[in-house]
Amino acid sequence: MLKLFHAWGSCSLASLIALEEAGAAYEVALMDTKVGDQRKPEYLAVNPKSRVPALVTERGVLTETPAILAWIAQTWPAARLAPLDDPFAFAQCQAFNSYLCATVHVAHAHKHRGYRWAVTEAAFADMTAKVAENETACFGLIDSEMLQGPWVLGEAYSICDAYLFTIAGWLEGDGVDIRQFPKVAAHFDRVAARPAVRKVLA
Amino acid sequence: MLKLFHAWGSCSLASLIALEEAGAAYEVALMDTKVGDQRKPEYLAVNPKSRVPALVTERGVLTETPAILAWIAQTWPAARLAPLDDPFAFAQCQAFNSYLCATVHVAHAHKHRGYRWAVTEAAFADMTAKVAENETACFGLIDSEMLQGPWVLGEAYSICDAYLFTIAGWLEGDGVDIRQFPKVAAHFDRVAARPAVRKVLA
Repeated sequence: MLKLFHAWGSCSLASLIALEEAGAAYEVALMDTKVGDQRKPEYLAVNPKSRVPALVTERGVLTETPAILAWIAQTWPAARLAPLDDPFAFAQCQAFNSYLCATVHVAHAHKHRGYRWAVTEAAFADMTAKVAENETACFGLIDSEMLQGPWVLGEAYSICDAYLFTIAGWLEGDGVDIRQFPKVAAHFDRVAARPAVRKVLA
Repeated sequence: MLKLFHAWGSCSLASLIALEEAGAAYEVALMDTKVGDQRKPEYLAVNPKSRVPALVTERGVLTETPAILAWIAQTWPAARLAPLDDPFAFAQCQAFNSYLCATVHVAHAHKHRGYRWAVTEAAFADMTAKVAENETACFGLIDSEMLQGPWVLGEAYSICDAYLFTIAGWLEGDGVDIRQFPKVAAHFDRVAARPAVRKVLA
């Protein structure tokens, strides 16, 4: 059976939602990154990058949210979680996920994880202070340019929706009012109401 | 015809190499990010994210290197630039590209683009000083855990190779000796010797 290494509050929620939406059989290995589970030798043996998520499959371990999400969509095609038959539409799906991964998630990470990129407390404080501004810019762009509605890619729900829901869920804790972004806010509520999402959050 | 917005020294080289390897018909729109071409209104109309690469196709604009690379592989399947028929192998390909995009490229960006995440000169200097250490850690992991050899995914050349070559090409300028990573160094020379790569770099 699939095993997802998942930490609440982390981006692994997107993979958890996608597995549930796909109807996959999986178990969850809960990680507590606040106490450093991701740095323990037994986890480094699973994912030497020391991050969540990691998905253990019968073929081996998969990491990186955009890769895991696309794999879930391809492995359970009947769940229609990505536009698999149209390379251009699939690329748009992937571009959205890549933006979340490499720009929006990275913007958020500077709040508490400045030690990844600097060493002084003053630099950490500087980074932390800019997070809300950066997230506001990112979500402004998502709201105005990317989110087609009702779902990210338009009429069809996809892996992008689980991922956007996950990252938009960080806004409140980062001091950014989601109501500035009306399409994102409505999308957040729409995803939250899905049975699969209610189940994994229960 | 496809048009790739490309800046020398940027990650758009990976897409340029992949287009050439695919045998695609394309033209290049050269951007100079040092003078701010990416912030001009005419480019923001193409890519409101204000970054390269952007690939203009007959269906619309694609952005984000991992998405563009996978689209090229899927659109020219005869070039065999990704393991398209095996979702697990494709996910490994995508996970590698996602790591380059969201971790390794981001580590590099802190050298000159600290203003994205902070405002003080002291923080920029702090970030810049840590770049070589972070890149050394990333490439150490690529060398020991990820690069299967002779190509990233093993026996078959793929989009991952163009992308790794592109990012490894930044190491020298960042003060990191590629010879610390013997597999990466040999891989760099192997990619550099490919006819498609020699052609686009000529």
